[in-house]
Amino acid sequence: MVTETQFQKELEELKENLFRMASLVEGAIRDAVQSLVKRDSSLAQKTFDGEEHINKAEIMIDEMCLRLLALRQPVAVDLRFITSAMKIVTDLERMGDQAVNIAERAISLNQEPQLKPYIDIPRMAEITQSMVKDVLDAFIHSDPKLARSVCERDDLVDGLNDQVFRELLTYMISDPKTITRAVHLMIVCRCLERVADHATNIAEDVIFMVDALVIKHHADTKEEKG
Amino acid sequence: MVTETQFQKELEELKENLFRMASLVEGAIRDAVQSLVKRDSSLAQKTFDGEEHINKAEIMIDEMCLRLLALRQPVAVDLRFITSAMKIVTDLERMGDQAVNIAERAISLNQEPQLKPYIDIPRMAEITQSMVKDVLDAFIHSDPKLARSVCERDDLVDGLNDQVFRELLTYMISDPKTITRAVHLMIVCRCLERVADHATNIAEDVIFMVDALVIKHHADTKEEKG
Repeated sequence: MVTETQFQKELEELKENLFRMASLVEGAIRDAVQSLVKRDSSLAQKTFDGEEHINKAEIMIDEMCLRLLALRQPVAVDLRFITSAMKIVTDLERMGDQAVNIAERAISLNQEPQLKPYIDIPRMAEITQSMVKDVLDAFIHSDPKLARSVCERDDLVDGLNDQVFRELLTYMISDPKTITRAVHLMIVCRCLERVADHATNIAEDVIFMVDALVIKHHADTKEEKG
Repeated sequence: MVTETQFQKELEELKENLFRMASLVEGAIRDAVQSLVKRDSSLAQKTFDGEEHINKAEIMIDEMCLRLLALRQPVAVDLRFITSAMKIVTDLERMGDQAVNIAERAISLNQEPQLKPYIDIPRMAEITQSMVKDVLDAFIHSDPKLARSVCERDDLVDGLNDQVFRELLTYMISDPKTITRAVHLMIVCRCLERVADHATNIAEDVIFMVDALVIKHHADTKEEKG
């Protein structure tokens, strides 16, 4: 067996890699949405280029976790931390996929006249990015309070999504020529909502991990099993 | 340490629980889509009622995996199997969420005249259910060939989704009164597409696990690290 210090060093390295992957994802979302808002398709290209780095990070962190599980045979808190990290990288990679979907829609939308001023969508994106950032912090620092604030922001994103959705329906009904663009924008919103959902899923895992409370399924408080 | 036989028995139990959870999810999707097709909202209610069982199964299997990791300290193939199982239950639970989304839309749609005959949507649902079933088989029996066939079916689902999407756009453009219903149906299709995506994600993990090939990211063949 290795010393505690060596294992702690490896855990630190894992945490750094998770932070790095999360900021890649944040950047991918930012570029995709800015591509839409600034009508600059070269920013969408940055999202496409970044996808490979996100995918590689997922594989690398996954392998790192498997190695830690096999060689260090952690228990209790460390075990839960590492298995959670494996679930989190899956979520982060799928957030990256959503950013790519947004970038694709941005390119289509940038080729046509702008349907409406983009106000709620950048707001949704901003909240969503803050959720990605904060949920990672909450995970790394075992901070259920921060994780709960991420869950709360999910309601804001859902609310904005419903609002944009209704507004876009009005456009579609009053002028069928807007339908294609409105549908693209609806999909952009749904992608952001999906990212927020992934962040919320991680936040629920963090709360579960720390409190051993499954608020996710509104179950009763359970005692932690290590 | 326990005997090999005891550990094998526990792994068998884990597999049975995974099968059981997957068939709950399959049933939830079937009921949700049948609720739409048969215009019978009581079937949607079955999906809502089933959600709790799916959520409980997720927590139970997750705990079981953590226990196996902590107590049996598996390596190589068994380690990868258990960590993959933990990722798979997350996917299964989210498929269940998608079934609930479909059931909600079905209830809304059942309150209005039927927009169009439902032909492609039940077809999509059928393929999607077969993907859920087969991907679990592929995982349990380490069958990358079956897993690949699941990935191929994802293209069928995407194709049907695009087809229905275009058809619904035509409805919306020719008659704005259809827009709300068409949007509901678009969302049903996207939910089925999301389920297929989850199944495909699992299939890619199976292929990775068995072949240590990351087809997911079109990366080069890598050597398996245990």
